[in-house]
Amino acid sequence: MTSDSLAQIAQAELHALVLSALLGHGASDAQARAVADTVTAAERDGSHSHGIFRVPGYVASLRSGKVDGQAVPVLSRPAPASVVVDAAGGFAPLALATGIPALCETARATGVAVLSIGNCYHFAALWHEVEAIAAEGLIGFACTVATPMVAPAGGARPFFGTNPLAYAVPRPGRLPLVVDQASAAMARGDIMLAAEAGRAVPEGVGLGPDGAPSTDPARILEGAQLPFGGYKGAAIALLIEILAGGAIGGPFSDEAGAADNADGGPPVGGEFLMALDPAQLGGGSDWQQRIDGFLDRLSAIPGTRLPGARRHERRKALAAGSPLSVNGARLTALRQLADTRK
Amino acid sequence: MTSDSLAQIAQAELHALVLSALLGHGASDAQARAVADTVTAAERDGSHSHGIFRVPGYVASLRSGKVDGQAVPVLSRPAPASVVVDAAGGFAPLALATGIPALCETARATGVAVLSIGNCYHFAALWHEVEAIAAEGLIGFACTVATPMVAPAGGARPFFGTNPLAYAVPRPGRLPLVVDQASAAMARGDIMLAAEAGRAVPEGVGLGPDGAPSTDPARILEGAQLPFGGYKGAAIALLIEILAGGAIGGPFSDEAGAADNADGGPPVGGEFLMALDPAQLGGGSDWQQRIDGFLDRLSAIPGTRLPGARRHERRKALAAGSPLSVNGARLTALRQLADTRK
Repeated sequence: MTSDSLAQIAQAELHALVLSALLGHGASDAQARAVADTVTAAERDGSHSHGIFRVPGYVASLRSGKVDGQAVPVLSRPAPASVVVDAAGGFAPLALATGIPALCETARATGVAVLSIGNCYHFAALWHEVEAIAAEGLIGFACTVATPMVAPAGGARPFFGTNPLAYAVPRPGRLPLVVDQASAAMARGDIMLAAEAGRAVPEGVGLGPDGAPSTDPARILEGAQLPFGGYKGAAIALLIEILAGGAIGGPFSDEAGAADNADGGPPVGGEFLMALDPAQLGGGSDWQQRIDGFLDRLSAIPGTRLPGARRHERRKALAAGSPLSVNGARLTALRQLADTRK
Repeated sequence: MTSDSLAQIAQAELHALVLSALLGHGASDAQARAVADTVTAAERDGSHSHGIFRVPGYVASLRSGKVDGQAVPVLSRPAPASVVVDAAGGFAPLALATGIPALCETARATGVAVLSIGNCYHFAALWHEVEAIAAEGLIGFACTVATPMVAPAGGARPFFGTNPLAYAVPRPGRLPLVVDQASAAMARGDIMLAAEAGRAVPEGVGLGPDGAPSTDPARILEGAQLPFGGYKGAAIALLIEILAGGAIGGPFSDEAGAADNADGGPPVGGEFLMALDPAQLGGGSDWQQRIDGFLDRLSAIPGTRLPGARRHERRKALAAGSPLSVNGARLTALRQLADTRK
């Protein structure tokens, strides 16, 4: 978040504003509602870089005609453990809502299943979808590519997307364990927020357009981000290109970048999701309890903190339906988008 | 490798020595042969930390009775996309050889399948098994836990194993892309080799027993290794605990550590493997060509190098059956083990 003043808004009102902004620019009710759910959940959990900050991009991609706001996702099942959803050129959230129930039903029968989302426009965090899989009592995994932003190990120009991966594990009687992290040392959304705020970023985050290390977020956005953890993080970014690009037939990041119209909205792409039912994989009927105990032993170590804990603490602290604090300038922009028509 | 002098040995002779060392200490022909295949392949590819360096540990675990050298793995299929192999207290390589054909056959039918190896003793690199999956024209993935060696993010004592993950992707007419990396900043085998050689390791590799950063490999072996890439690498180590510990019913690293008899051999554990057939996941019939082209575009970027390239270049440079250069002191020790009986 920038230093802009905060504004209070009820969750239901925020949802209605996002819905209105998208409906007013050509989205169907189903497409708009799925995006509004995702944006509202991001603001609720404090994921500001994936909240209303993204709405102008969603609207821009409807305005430019890149995204088909009326798209109706089509589900198929090419093999017993494989669910494919063709998003038909729409946003990812409706395609995910279409595919995840079938993914979970399949994994419970087969032990493991993959959901391949193709031909979609993804502009959100991934924790939303892996949490939905964990809510079904399964282990969820997701990853997606983007456009070239991250240099490969040894290289000085962008080639990989920021390529986030996420996983979630159900915990009996508690919110699930949820990890959602970019393969870049820093999420691009956070570099964009730093640039907006005129704040330097740490060393190791990126290179300037000249290929030399930089801490200036604006120069890094013109240059290249770096993967987390050197060549090992680059190998994770590469795995994500292979799964969410190659394996499911979507574009790789370099192809998505070449195809994009630079309207400020999301690029075309795919998303790879997987659900695992450990009870069918030799994990026994008590696998949730065993993992839960392991996570308790981990979080008992001084200095540690489970991934995603901050987001969940924030969610629990919010009384149901209580208003959210959001960036005031962005809320004003959202109200304008909600009032305009294409 | 240490500075010890090198010795030349034919691949077939090396294989026979390992076989003899294991047969002489209570392993069945099938168990011994599977381990000898793995050890010989490691030396062939220059993976010295997983070559004959490991044979004394294999032998120690047979001598102590921890590993059942006569174990016969048992395969079951609890669900349509799930293959389970109970290694029955034997070494991993025979269990892998038992399960991988069934894993690949299943994945070709279902799109994705998981192979859960339970109750095994794993002491090798993972690239051997993911290459076997790629050789069947599928994408292979594997990971395994160990005993506590790596501190979690923010913590100062070992909790995670070094938790390697590996993946392999077939490339038409070429050796596959193969990645095999520990979740630790440095593989423990390499820290052991550095300690043996009296060589310091880089900062960021580990903490001494007092919890303070150290570059002394001996102190790090008594203290804690660090994950690669900070909290993001720790989240990869955690994912591996969840897959190769929790999901398949094997011990987590902390449980395996508590159960181990510290005989110098491998701890009990499980291994999680997965095979994907992109042709069934929306990837189309040309998925191998598409990934191959992507990898060509990646390796064309100045300064980059595909993971595993060095190992494969070494393999290609070795004329078939030509002798290997191995550590002389270790070869002498191997010859002694091959000559002794329990």
